[in-house]
Amino acid sequence: MYFTGFRCFECGKLYRPDEDLLLCPACHNLLDATYDYDAIGRDLDRDAIAARPHGVWRWREFMPVLDDAAIVSLGEGDGPMLRCDRIAKAVGVRELWVKSDANNPTGSLKDRSITVSATKAVEFGYKILSCDSTGNKASSVAAYAARAGLDSVVFCPDDTPVPKVTQALYFGARVIRVRGHYSQINAMYRKLIHSGAVKWYDCGTDNPFRYEGKKSYAYEIAQHLGWRAPDRVVHPANGGMSIVKAWKGFGELKRIGWLEGLPKMTGVQAANCAPIAKAVLAGANIVTPVEKGPTIASALAGADPGLLGNRAVASIRESGGTALGVSDAETLEAMQLLASEGLFIEPSGAVAIAGIKRLVAEGKASPDERVVCVVTGSGFKDFDQIASQVRIPEETVGSYEELLAAAQALG
Amino acid sequence: MYFTGFRCFECGKLYRPDEDLLLCPACHNLLDATYDYDAIGRDLDRDAIAARPHGVWRWREFMPVLDDAAIVSLGEGDGPMLRCDRIAKAVGVRELWVKSDANNPTGSLKDRSITVSATKAVEFGYKILSCDSTGNKASSVAAYAARAGLDSVVFCPDDTPVPKVTQALYFGARVIRVRGHYSQINAMYRKLIHSGAVKWYDCGTDNPFRYEGKKSYAYEIAQHLGWRAPDRVVHPANGGMSIVKAWKGFGELKRIGWLEGLPKMTGVQAANCAPIAKAVLAGANIVTPVEKGPTIASALAGADPGLLGNRAVASIRESGGTALGVSDAETLEAMQLLASEGLFIEPSGAVAIAGIKRLVAEGKASPDERVVCVVTGSGFKDFDQIASQVRIPEETVGSYEELLAAAQALG
Ligand SMILES: [Zn+2]
Ligand SMILES: [Zn+2]
Repeated sequence: MYFTGFRCFECGKLYRPDEDLLLCPACHNLLDATYDYDAIGRDLDRDAIAARPHGVWRWREFMPVLDDAAIVSLGEGDGPMLRCDRIAKAVGVRELWVKSDANNPTGSLKDRSITVSATKAVEFGYKILSCDSTGNKASSVAAYAARAGLDSVVFCPDDTPVPKVTQALYFGARVIRVRGHYSQINAMYRKLIHSGAVKWYDCGTDNPFRYEGKKSYAYEIAQHLGWRAPDRVVHPANGGMSIVKAWKGFGELKRIGWLEGLPKMTGVQAANCAPIAKAVLAGANIVTPVEKGPTIASALAGADPGLLGNRAVASIRESGGTALGVSDAETLEAMQLLASEGLFIEPSGAVAIAGIKRLVAEGKASPDERVVCVVTGSGFKDFDQIASQVRIPEETVGSYEELLAAAQALG
Repeated sequence: MYFTGFRCFECGKLYRPDEDLLLCPACHNLLDATYDYDAIGRDLDRDAIAARPHGVWRWREFMPVLDDAAIVSLGEGDGPMLRCDRIAKAVGVRELWVKSDANNPTGSLKDRSITVSATKAVEFGYKILSCDSTGNKASSVAAYAARAGLDSVVFCPDDTPVPKVTQALYFGARVIRVRGHYSQINAMYRKLIHSGAVKWYDCGTDNPFRYEGKKSYAYEIAQHLGWRAPDRVVHPANGGMSIVKAWKGFGELKRIGWLEGLPKMTGVQAANCAPIAKAVLAGANIVTPVEKGPTIASALAGADPGLLGNRAVASIRESGGTALGVSDAETLEAMQLLASEGLFIEPSGAVAIAGIKRLVAEGKASPDERVVCVVTGSGFKDFDQIASQVRIPEETVGSYEELLAAAQALG
């Protein structure tokens, strides 16, 4: 067991590894898990870990878990890492890789982190898991609760894409639909959790265990590239915690001596809801909420990322990266580029491709870079946005002669 | 290179490994790829293969490919293998594992085999890939064609689930919708291909390269269980070729000395369209077409599996397994059992669970068995069948007081 406890990002106070914590009890800021990296480096070997059965849990020494028997897994992590030369050419970089979370158990990035919070719920003895969500987190929490034999309650905007809500309901979740946009719901949900009115295990914004699962991005990318960091990792950013934790993961590997180089962490938001990008570009340390405008990237609706956003800005700046907002038109083009490589990705999941294209065009990223773009959700998760881009032909054929004619008409 | 060519299942004639073949030119029956297993056993080590980057292609020495540079991959294979004690208890067996293909790149089992046929299309220099399909094969062919930078044409029943058709179109496929049920379309499509009227690379029923990809089921299951075969492998059966090739894969490992034991191969069909089960239960060697009745398992609509079906019957019988048809009600119950473990599976993909339950109830499978059930497609692929099982709540909440009240109402 290498997990040693928590340190508050803000006040630095330390906590024991067996405490059931959300925010720092002292200052109500976010907590960050700590580990004995010297021991990990002494006891473990990166190639031995690489050879374990795949998934997030082959990195279990880097996870804040006390009891391996509590692990709740659906086979998450280690999604495809695909070199995409056609996209590289279209966006103007030397080498581009897509790391896809679309084939995670419930079809999005959330499974990487919810597997950890579900495990902690079992460790701590909770009976009900809960979260607020733009949809993907809800279906993930519902699935992992089912896998653990527990119940779940999820709070979603009333305009959440139908597939995400349906998936959560199918797994048995109680879905509470809330009028308002995501950050408003997030504020109410967090007030509920911190009020103590319910005895649920919160897998939402403030859970410090959950986010550790997202370090696995760094481990998988590093291993795939021969333990050499790419020049840049581009990731969609709602709250921005994926960026914070991927950056932490690269740093861990570097500290242990398993990694050469470090990437520039780059966050991509929807232009109409881009508070993190605004703060990064203004040189601010604190993210100011924005007025949310319309966007097809429904999972990137965090107009007020709060504490998470501040940490994301810090990680991006420390890494030498940047952040930006992309338009719906750019996102649609990115989806088509992904489709041209055989990838079926929801709008929110595709923005990293749009982001790197713009950065290169504006001279803010070099064409010589080796870039990894994370795509975070399946096209099935926001299916209407995909379906509206194609037309199912009305014509049918019914005989061999008609079929032959249709075939020959294709040339 | 260990791939040595093809042998006709029926007349035994041998062919060279570099020939561009569909059916046996001599007798028009199915071909089976051959390998130099003595050399594989001498040169390779099962644990070294297990430690390679995951997916179908870590078994490339067992694949009928001449040029590794031609490989067209989207990261297929090595989906979750989950021990499901809740399902085991519900169906009445000692130990039950689910091997899931729902998280393959396009969301179904087809990616395991289409990755091989797409690779062969590149090797042979084709520009267009084609298939007939109940839907999953169509979206897979479209995705792999896109990945390879090629075009695709797919033929589907006019009542194919919308998500499957949409996915194929989104990847740029030309979709030809055909009135009639699958076996009628299959007959017309095969006539088209063998007529020579089109110069497309057929990834459909008769392609002997493609099916080799399905041997990877056996390799993955064997490795996961410590190179000891389960007592039984239960698989949905349309044409039945997955069963034939999984059985071949287990046999290969056994011959090389990498596997202890062999499983009973068990095929599950929809009761209203169960020609393979009918032949197995009647002790017949030749599958007779049936009259197709209605079923929610739209991917199991092969009323006339033809040559494939005969091979499936032979493999099932050789392994000591069996086949059966299950009702829609049994399939719906199986879907719910899978959901209780956090798995989101389309009707056609869930029938293996229904099948083992019935076999145990009827005393045809022992409660002491260790069983692996293959689930073959994501719930998103036939989404209407999932959506009809849940009700999205109409009520919404809009204030903290309402949200608190809704939360407290859950107890
Ligand atoms: Zn603090
Ligand atoms: Zn022959």
